[in-house]
Amino acid sequence: MFLTRTEYDRGVNTFSPEGRLFQVEYAIEAIKLGSTAIGLKTKEGVVLAVEKRITSPLLEPSSVEKIMEIDEHIGCAMSGLIADARTLVEHARVETQNHRFSYGEPMTVESTTQALCDLALRFGEGDEESMSRPFGVSLLIAGHDENGPSLYYTDPSGTFWQCNAKAIGSGSEGADSSLQEQYNKDLTLQEAETIALSILKQVMEEKVTPNNVDIAKVAPTYHLYTPAEVEVVISHL
Amino acid sequence: MFLTRTEYDRGVNTFSPEGRLFQVEYAIEAIKLGSTAIGLKTKEGVVLAVEKRITSPLLEPSSVEKIMEIDEHIGCAMSGLIADARTLVEHARVETQNHRFSYGEPMTVESTTQALCDLALRFGEGDEESMSRPFGVSLLIAGHDENGPSLYYTDPSGTFWQCNAKAIGSGSEGADSSLQEQYNKDLTLQEAETIALSILKQVMEEKVTPNNVDIAKVAPTYHLYTPAEVEVVISHL
Amino acid sequence: MFLTRTEYDRGVNTFSPEGRLFQVEYAIEAIKLGSTAIGLKTKEGVVLAVEKRITSPLLEPSSVEKIMEIDEHIGCAMSGLIADARTLVEHARVETQNHRFSYGEPMTVESTTQALCDLALRFGEGDEESMSRPFGVSLLIAGHDENGPSLYYTDPSGTFWQCNAKAIGSGSEGADSSLQEQYNKDLTLQEAETIALSILKQVMEEKVTPNNVDIAKVAPTYHLYTPAEVEVVISHL
Amino acid sequence: MFLTRTEYDRGVNTFSPEGRLFQVEYAIEAIKLGSTAIGLKTKEGVVLAVEKRITSPLLEPSSVEKIMEIDEHIGCAMSGLIADARTLVEHARVETQNHRFSYGEPMTVESTTQALCDLALRFGEGDEESMSRPFGVSLLIAGHDENGPSLYYTDPSGTFWQCNAKAIGSGSEGADSSLQEQYNKDLTLQEAETIALSILKQVMEEKVTPNNVDIAKVAPTYHLYTPAEVEVVISHL
Amino acid sequence: MFLTRTEYDRGVNTFSPEGRLFQVEYAIEAIKLGSTAIGLKTKEGVVLAVEKRITSPLLEPSSVEKIMEIDEHIGCAMSGLIADARTLVEHARVETQNHRFSYGEPMTVESTTQALCDLALRFGEGDEESMSRPFGVSLLIAGHDENGPSLYYTDPSGTFWQCNAKAIGSGSEGADSSLQEQYNKDLTLQEAETIALSILKQVMEEKVTPNNVDIAKVAPTYHLYTPAEVEVVISHL
Amino acid sequence: MFLTRTEYDRGVNTFSPEGRLFQVEYAIEAIKLGSTAIGLKTKEGVVLAVEKRITSPLLEPSSVEKIMEIDEHIGCAMSGLIADARTLVEHARVETQNHRFSYGEPMTVESTTQALCDLALRFGEGDEESMSRPFGVSLLIAGHDENGPSLYYTDPSGTFWQCNAKAIGSGSEGADSSLQEQYNKDLTLQEAETIALSILKQVMEEKVTPNNVDIAKVAPTYHLYTPAEVEVVISHL
Amino acid sequence: MFLTRTEYDRGVNTFSPEGRLFQVEYAIEAIKLGSTAIGLKTKEGVVLAVEKRITSPLLEPSSVEKIMEIDEHIGCAMSGLIADARTLVEHARVETQNHRFSYGEPMTVESTTQALCDLALRFGEGDEESMSRPFGVSLLIAGHDENGPSLYYTDPSGTFWQCNAKAIGSGSEGADSSLQEQYNKDLTLQEAETIALSILKQVMEEKVTPNNVDIAKVAPTYHLYTPAEVEVVISHL
Repeated sequence: MFLTRTEYDRGVNTFSPEGRLFQVEYAIEAIKLGSTAIGLKTKEGVVLAVEKRITSPLLEPSSVEKIMEIDEHIGCAMSGLIADARTLVEHARVETQNHRFSYGEPMTVESTTQALCDLALRFGEGDEESMSRPFGVSLLIAGHDENGPSLYYTDPSGTFWQCNAKAIGSGSEGADSSLQEQYNKDLTLQEAETIALSILKQVMEEKVTPNNVDIAKVAPTYHLYTPAEVEVVISHL
Repeated sequence: MFLTRTEYDRGVNTFSPEGRLFQVEYAIEAIKLGSTAIGLKTKEGVVLAVEKRITSPLLEPSSVEKIMEIDEHIGCAMSGLIADARTLVEHARVETQNHRFSYGEPMTVESTTQALCDLALRFGEGDEESMSRPFGVSLLIAGHDENGPSLYYTDPSGTFWQCNAKAIGSGSEGADSSLQEQYNKDLTLQEAETIALSILKQVMEEKVTPNNVDIAKVAPTYHLYTPAEVEVVISHL
Repeated sequence: MFLTRTEYDRGVNTFSPEGRLFQVEYAIEAIKLGSTAIGLKTKEGVVLAVEKRITSPLLEPSSVEKIMEIDEHIGCAMSGLIADARTLVEHARVETQNHRFSYGEPMTVESTTQALCDLALRFGEGDEESMSRPFGVSLLIAGHDENGPSLYYTDPSGTFWQCNAKAIGSGSEGADSSLQEQYNKDLTLQEAETIALSILKQVMEEKVTPNNVDIAKVAPTYHLYTPAEVEVVISHL
Repeated sequence: MFLTRTEYDRGVNTFSPEGRLFQVEYAIEAIKLGSTAIGLKTKEGVVLAVEKRITSPLLEPSSVEKIMEIDEHIGCAMSGLIADARTLVEHARVETQNHRFSYGEPMTVESTTQALCDLALRFGEGDEESMSRPFGVSLLIAGHDENGPSLYYTDPSGTFWQCNAKAIGSGSEGADSSLQEQYNKDLTLQEAETIALSILKQVMEEKVTPNNVDIAKVAPTYHLYTPAEVEVVISHL
Repeated sequence: MFLTRTEYDRGVNTFSPEGRLFQVEYAIEAIKLGSTAIGLKTKEGVVLAVEKRITSPLLEPSSVEKIMEIDEHIGCAMSGLIADARTLVEHARVETQNHRFSYGEPMTVESTTQALCDLALRFGEGDEESMSRPFGVSLLIAGHDENGPSLYYTDPSGTFWQCNAKAIGSGSEGADSSLQEQYNKDLTLQEAETIALSILKQVMEEKVTPNNVDIAKVAPTYHLYTPAEVEVVISHL
Repeated sequence: MFLTRTEYDRGVNTFSPEGRLFQVEYAIEAIKLGSTAIGLKTKEGVVLAVEKRITSPLLEPSSVEKIMEIDEHIGCAMSGLIADARTLVEHARVETQNHRFSYGEPMTVESTTQALCDLALRFGEGDEESMSRPFGVSLLIAGHDENGPSLYYTDPSGTFWQCNAKAIGSGSEGADSSLQEQYNKDLTLQEAETIALSILKQVMEEKVTPNNVDIAKVAPTYHLYTPAEVEVVISHL
Repeated sequence: MFLTRTEYDRGVNTFSPEGRLFQVEYAIEAIKLGSTAIGLKTKEGVVLAVEKRITSPLLEPSSVEKIMEIDEHIGCAMSGLIADARTLVEHARVETQNHRFSYGEPMTVESTTQALCDLALRFGEGDEESMSRPFGVSLLIAGHDENGPSLYYTDPSGTFWQCNAKAIGSGSEGADSSLQEQYNKDLTLQEAETIALSILKQVMEEKVTPNNVDIAKVAPTYHLYTPAEVEVVISHL
């Protein structure tokens, strides 16, 4: 049974007899190996929090970037292959800048997400921008536009969903359950910060410090918390 | 026997000894895993209804779009891979806009359907717009043009048929039987709404709510029902 | 023995040790699964008749097009993959229109058939217009030009023959025998209609109605029979 | 041993360890399945005669073209895949027309044959005009130029030879022996016609009629015999 | 188990069922075979030190370049396939020169590192600049820009991290442990030189001489130590 | 052992573990099946002689061209696949004509040989002029330029050597031994003719006649012997 | 174990699980089959000496070129596939000529070597100049520029080293040992000639003559020794 599977991923982008795309499923496996990231939407804005795996005390924690700015009103947290995520984020940055230049206004969060997913969907097609395999990364895209705050979740198949709260990465299963218990639409931004970090703390096997987590908000503009600001959130746990 | 099958899908678009195209058949399997969608044509216009699988209470129901507008006189419901469907719909939107621009009049529903199927047929050909595998999606295309209302059904082979009523997706077999029993050409639009939703209700394993179904009509322009409008239809069940 | 066959269709367009092109032979198998179509040439013009498989009572019979106009003096009936046939017919329509535009006169039936077959022959060549596999379709091309009426038959290898009468599709074997018995060159067009339909009736397993057959003639221009006209032919059986 | 062969034709144009090109050898097999064609050169001109396999009485014999004109001073008879032969002949027609246009004189028979073979040799090279497999056809090219009458024989490897007389196709072995016995350089054109047809008669399993053979001559211009002219030759047998 | 692995690296850039990219992992193996390189960041600048494997006394030690200048404010040490490293360094040199030309100021160290990783990520994509396999090389990139001194570490997956100290190559495991013990942020540049060389000495199996190690610093500009300067560092061990 | 070989020629141009290029070796096998050709250099000029295999008495001997003129001062004899040789010779003819046109003087024999070998070396590279497999032919290139007479020998690997005398093809082993015994630098052209033909006679299994051998010389211009001139040489045996 | 190896060279340029590039390693095997070449650098200039394998007494020794001029200040000796070496040398000649034309001064020896290695590294990338496999050749590049005399050694991986003395080819192992014993930096050019030839003599299995060795020097310009000059060196042995 396992052997027949291997027959199908030779063609990078081919259906199996059951109608499945194995390369996409395998890329989703890559994300299950990644660090955990959490997003929560509140009326005041969106909070993103990620676990940073600092494999060596000699690593500069700030260089392990798992939350990145796309445009001043959009940020994203990632889980999976970091180099793949950087390519997607760079693509989104170009798209949002072009949009500002062409139309004189910011790109909506949904259009930005769609642009990212268009690129993700086209893997294996051999044209200039696309990859020869699926992008091995999931993103939580937090933004704020004319429709207010929003949180999107993308996967390697190029599909996206809008969420109120979502966890991705190796600890996502437990974290999603906790989110369903603790989330409600009337959370303040500060409450959301505290929930995000307390859930991250559960899935991480070490003490939470400004060195091993990052927090950001889009409320209404993107802001990555300083170590001091992270300490404040930690003090609320 | 199963092993000899696997020999044939290495070449994405190749005939088997029995004259079959396995990749297309496998893509059709992908649709059998998808959520159910139903379309009914009446003299007043066409009704589309889809099941939305909301896998988590934290997901924003309105972001699970399984009914989309193509042009103001054409909409479609989909079952299968959502990212594939978005690509086809985006292609159709460009085609209909170009047609309006070039000829100063809306594209007919059949021409729009043909344009979608041309793209679907050309998979595996390596040119810029086509996919490297079949599109894993079926569409119900509802429209209204100089010939009145019409409903088309497309499959991954790039073939299309005009129908009076049709169901696609995992529950399509039972839903099609129910449609044959309940459909007649003299249904009012409101009766069609009620039939569509009552059949969807049968194939779904949970209570029908404005959160887990979407309804749209083209009569003669595309309109996606608001949650309140969906509640009205539910109240008629 | 079966296994060695499978070795050869990996290369889409390659000879087997016995000098055979398996992909073309497999495409011919696809046609044997198709619905039956019949053509007869008379001195007055050519008649085409096809079986339409209406798989559901909710399908619009007129949208199952198995006879199509190519130019006002040429029409064709098809058996096999409908989406493939549409591509070929669309190609022929462009060719005949270009010919009219360039030379101010209609393209001959033979040149039109040759143009179709040129496209069919070039599968697997990777250029823009050709398919990556053989076209899985046979055509009966009926036309009328300066040489009078003519009927051509094409197969997936890109070969064509001129015939007095010919059947294609799943029932072609029995239908061809009947044609050989009943055909003579002095048939009137009306007699040809009756013969075509009576033979179709034999190979179909249901009652012949205007819903499940189509009839067309080129005499000297293309005309697809209305349901009423089909009823008249049925009444002559 | 048979299995190791199959390893080599995956690469369409690759040498086997014994220095053989199997795809070319397999294409030659395709010709051994073809109908028989015969050519004889006399001082007065060249005669071509072919067997036409009329598989159905409803087939128009004149549409089974196995002898075709290339230019007014060159014709050819073919055995093997007819669609392939048509592509080669069409290529040769364009070449000879271009030559007339550029140089104001007819192309020599050898140059025409070389042009055909250049195209045949380049299979599997992926450029626009070449095929992705060898052309499965042999040609007998009859012509008349400043060097007098000439007869060339080409095979799928792109090689050609000049001959006094030659048979190709399924009956070629026996026919070649008969030609060697009966041919001499001083034959009249009429004697050549009779020899060609009498040898064809031996290899065909049915009565020779104007319906199942074609005869042509280049003496010094191409002429395809009418049924009446074929009857005259038959009467000389 | 080993056999199923081999199935996956046929496609150069494909996920395995566990979500792994084997070609990248194999390229990382190539680096484990490489010579050891060490980098340390101090407030005064960054030190790089590499082991040079001089396989023959007839080899010119200075031609075994494992530390190279990228721009006057950036240098790098490498481990793995030297020819691959040269390609990356050449690419970075062009990028930094273009940046100076376009913006009139030096490229930041992070942007330079990102540019290197963009190229590394795109292997197997068939465009002009990218490789058909991963680059089999890790780099330690030392630089000094407006943010002060910095040290980056890149691997074949196109990922990069900022570090205070890092070892790569066959001796990296032991060297990294030693670095963690001995590194602190207040080291002077001279102390860093001594630590780097003493750790290199531990992993090399021969006496350290100016012939078999290279040392460079970026403080704030790139400088490769002369043999005499290396001798001075050796004398401090 | 034989099976592992077959693994290597799937990639047309790949090294085996022993550092061998099997496709080139297999192409060399193709030449061992070819007819024998012999070249001898004298101070007066170069003689070429080839065996012509006339497989049928109906074949025109003069159309079996195994010695061809490249330019008026260069000719070549070939063994192996004739169609491949024609391509190489045609390429060389264009090169020598271009050289005359650009520089107003004949191309040297070595440059011409190098140009032929450049084309032969580039097989499998997919560009327009190169073949998708090695050229299955060896050439003996005889010429006369400012350096006097010269004889070159090329093989399918694109390598060439200058020789005083050389035999290629199926009889080359015995013929080379005979040449080593009988050749000396002071032979007259007439003696060289006689030696060439007497050695050819040994390897051929039939009587030597002007029909089954060709002789040419470059002394200093290319001249293909007429049947009468060949008879004269035969008379000297 | 051997079988798993064969899995890896199907992809021409792919890593094995141990991080190895087998096609490059196999190309290096091709060089181990090649003739021996030796280079020595002295303060007066660089000496190159090669073994010429004259397989037949009828071969023109001067046409077996294993030492070639690149520019007037650079020459190279080669071992491995001669046709590959010629391509590399031709590439280097164009590069050095372009450099002279663009900058009005000779290209340095290192830049020339780097240009050769850039081409060697890019095999399997499908662009116009690169090969579809590694170049099966090693070069000893001798030159003289503003930095004085230098000797470089390149291998099929595209890596290069600067050496004082180096042997390549089938006899390289023994020759390298002898070079290490006999080389010192103060050798005169004449002593270097004698050492090179005496070491070659050891690895060759026949008497050294001007026919089976070639010697060249770059001191400071390239000069290939005449047979008389080689005799002088032989007399010093």
